[in-house]
Amino acid sequence: MKKIDVPILKNIVGEENISTDPADLFIYGSDSSVHSARPWVVVRPGDTQQVQQIMAYANQEKIPVVTRGGGSGMCGQTVPVQGGITLDMKRMNKILEINAPDVFCRVQPGVVDDDLNKALSPFGVFYPPTPASSRIATIGGEIGNNASGVRSVKYGATRDSVLGLKVVLADGSLVTLGARTRVEATGYQVHKLMVGSEGTLGVVVEATLSFVPIPKFRCLGMANFDRLEDAGTAIADIMASGVVPSMLELVDSVAIKAVNKTMDLGLPEVEAVLLYEADGMVKEAVDYEINTMQEVCKNNGGTGLTSSYDAKERAKIFLGRKKLFPALSKFSDALSSTSLADDMAVPYSKMAETAKMIHEIAARNNIIMTAYGHCGSGCMHTKILMAPNRQDQWESAKRAVAEIYEYVRSVKGTTSAEHGIGISKASAFKAEKNDSLKLMINMKKAFDPNNILNPGKLMDAHEDWVTATDLRYTVA
Amino acid sequence: MKKIDVPILKNIVGEENISTDPADLFIYGSDSSVHSARPWVVVRPGDTQQVQQIMAYANQEKIPVVTRGGGSGMCGQTVPVQGGITLDMKRMNKILEINAPDVFCRVQPGVVDDDLNKALSPFGVFYPPTPASSRIATIGGEIGNNASGVRSVKYGATRDSVLGLKVVLADGSLVTLGARTRVEATGYQVHKLMVGSEGTLGVVVEATLSFVPIPKFRCLGMANFDRLEDAGTAIADIMASGVVPSMLELVDSVAIKAVNKTMDLGLPEVEAVLLYEADGMVKEAVDYEINTMQEVCKNNGGTGLTSSYDAKERAKIFLGRKKLFPALSKFSDALSSTSLADDMAVPYSKMAETAKMIHEIAARNNIIMTAYGHCGSGCMHTKILMAPNRQDQWESAKRAVAEIYEYVRSVKGTTSAEHGIGISKASAFKAEKNDSLKLMINMKKAFDPNNILNPGKLMDAHEDWVTATDLRYTVA
Repeated sequence: MKKIDVPILKNIVGEENISTDPADLFIYGSDSSVHSARPWVVVRPGDTQQVQQIMAYANQEKIPVVTRGGGSGMCGQTVPVQGGITLDMKRMNKILEINAPDVFCRVQPGVVDDDLNKALSPFGVFYPPTPASSRIATIGGEIGNNASGVRSVKYGATRDSVLGLKVVLADGSLVTLGARTRVEATGYQVHKLMVGSEGTLGVVVEATLSFVPIPKFRCLGMANFDRLEDAGTAIADIMASGVVPSMLELVDSVAIKAVNKTMDLGLPEVEAVLLYEADGMVKEAVDYEINTMQEVCKNNGGTGLTSSYDAKERAKIFLGRKKLFPALSKFSDALSSTSLADDMAVPYSKMAETAKMIHEIAARNNIIMTAYGHCGSGCMHTKILMAPNRQDQWESAKRAVAEIYEYVRSVKGTTSAEHGIGISKASAFKAEKNDSLKLMINMKKAFDPNNILNPGKLMDAHEDWVTATDLRYTVA
Repeated sequence: MKKIDVPILKNIVGEENISTDPADLFIYGSDSSVHSARPWVVVRPGDTQQVQQIMAYANQEKIPVVTRGGGSGMCGQTVPVQGGITLDMKRMNKILEINAPDVFCRVQPGVVDDDLNKALSPFGVFYPPTPASSRIATIGGEIGNNASGVRSVKYGATRDSVLGLKVVLADGSLVTLGARTRVEATGYQVHKLMVGSEGTLGVVVEATLSFVPIPKFRCLGMANFDRLEDAGTAIADIMASGVVPSMLELVDSVAIKAVNKTMDLGLPEVEAVLLYEADGMVKEAVDYEINTMQEVCKNNGGTGLTSSYDAKERAKIFLGRKKLFPALSKFSDALSSTSLADDMAVPYSKMAETAKMIHEIAARNNIIMTAYGHCGSGCMHTKILMAPNRQDQWESAKRAVAEIYEYVRSVKGTTSAEHGIGISKASAFKAEKNDSLKLMINMKKAFDPNNILNPGKLMDAHEDWVTATDLRYTVA
């Protein structure tokens, strides 16, 4: 272990914002993934200058630095595989400016997604990238992973909303990237590169974000499909219909069963459910879009079609989808819901085939997997239900993950849609980006010559996630 | 001059695709800017392998390579300031795939923008980034500059439509970047960085682009403003109204006079004209958007309000804007219309002030300048009307350009909205990106250690455009 001088860090942020307490190190060593490791020290900076001082010190001493927001990452991005400093950014949680006439806001990275939207709401606008974890996910973490969420089909991902960034580089210097305007063509757009770089290129200390008007009308519809393939064709047909849904979600039979089992919603146990939403300022336009999608569903064998503009009714329709995660967790006492092949993106026409393939691969490997996702943006998610205390189940899961990403590459999909690479997807990432890894390694060196920023991730990652870190679940 | 072995290049692309003819070198040494220089040889590759071979040779011999599309760049991006090879990409002009169900197409870089849209149209979709030069601009050139155009306010810029790229790097190796899906979070998004890098990081040989449905309804409106400030307030109010226009254009009094003088359109000689368009699948929604914008214009003193859904009527309303360039060129026999402070982006609330400032700065420096632009995306353009055979007018223009960009920085605008940096904006670029230049230089080295890709541009550019190159206009 390299030497770390805790008093120097205390001097920068104050004693109360440092911890080496084993309980803290344990918590800060885990996120929402299966992975776990320990930082040597947790540091909670309060402003940009402190971040600069910490980075200058870490760079001089070549100490690893892992930047962390809400800790809701699903694949181990903030797990400090080489120890070092974990930089908890949650104290830097100020909304610095909401500029309605110029359609941007400036925020610190520790602002929680939902809090930003609460603050924007009186201006009649919202910040569209909204992961399911928006109650705890921070803007900084969302930038690190290029988070997107259910409305990405219409409003894009985090990268589309980031106009500019202030970033502390590995050596402690501060750079201002991007602009405040809708378009920019002023040389290298480094701020866009920072989005999705998983803390390996710099520490974001301020973000300039765009926002969009809150639509006056939102209508949510649902359709059941006896055959997964038919839901898949419906997805492709909707995306080719000229309609831009504000949401298009697929829920598979495993998820439906889990929800029914734990919540008693009485959902029909079909192969697939599609949820589709349209939004806008004019009801006639939303009507047209909902009707078009409903028609497509009907033409592809969709049944039990329902839709509503009413907020309460919409919440009821969405309840099953919303409660998917807890339902999967409670599915069985013996089985845990784990994120491993947690997300991927595939072309629309391959959505149903991908879900089917996931089920087949799971069955072949003696585990249970669910497939669901934001299909309108090509995004597919899974959860693995497995017995975490059985070594053979981990081996099965490992095989299944490898097979799934091999399939994804074969249909020209990509390893991550919105959860990032972290630890669990490193091997698939390397296989997919095989021909540009050398370039990315050179880029990383240009930003961080001492490799102190989140080392052991992306190009630098161990390809075997089982041996890369401890696992949060005890193996007997 | 470094040694160049023309027979080696002939061997790669064939004799008919090489030229060292002085007339060709002159033409290929100029673009739509005031700048000029000579390449040593023009090479027209026909496929990716040839590009790889050319780059491998150039890299070995450290010969500069400038990639060129339609030659419609406005600030000298493709002017080969250090000589070398000009790589004319126009032979690589195949549309490789139009995949309607999966909402992407794959094209070679030499495809002309209008040709792509002609090919997409039978599928009911269009590729939104459309610069005024779309009849000659190539997709590769648009990627190099992050081009956008009149509809960027609603549909974004080139970067927003680029899902993936194949790129030949400086050493001749080929990398596949990005994906084919609406969202992606698979490590560094290098394809987005390539967009706007002005040929300094690699040679694009294939692009995967997204497209959007052609709206069923388009309505274009116009309003006249006696006071520029009022048009400015109308722009900001429209952008804050919840409406997303598909076009929002400002035309200033200088431009109106030029159009009237050369075309006899009888436009009212007010201080500003706003053109606003809405589009969509449902007429009620388009009505609502047009009415909202019209109401905003009226409330801000707009007069002569008119609007139409009819294609012919719309063309008539747009005619003055469309013919702006030729009108400015023919404004006076003694004056040429030149692009120097050709574009910039500023916050919406500063639009009118910027236009006014441009007029003031021009008057102070004894030249005439027009201000117009795609205000809905914060984009402002100018043309300088000046006597190009007078040294003092060049000196005046130089001063005016410096003053304009100093003003742009003071209101937190950015040096380029969509035309890029090239030669004429290099000094402003360096001043704006002062704190990240070192980082960008390191990034460039990571991509191109021998600095052969478009050397002498961006961070590497001479800050004085008058001395950086020959000028296309003869100074007496």
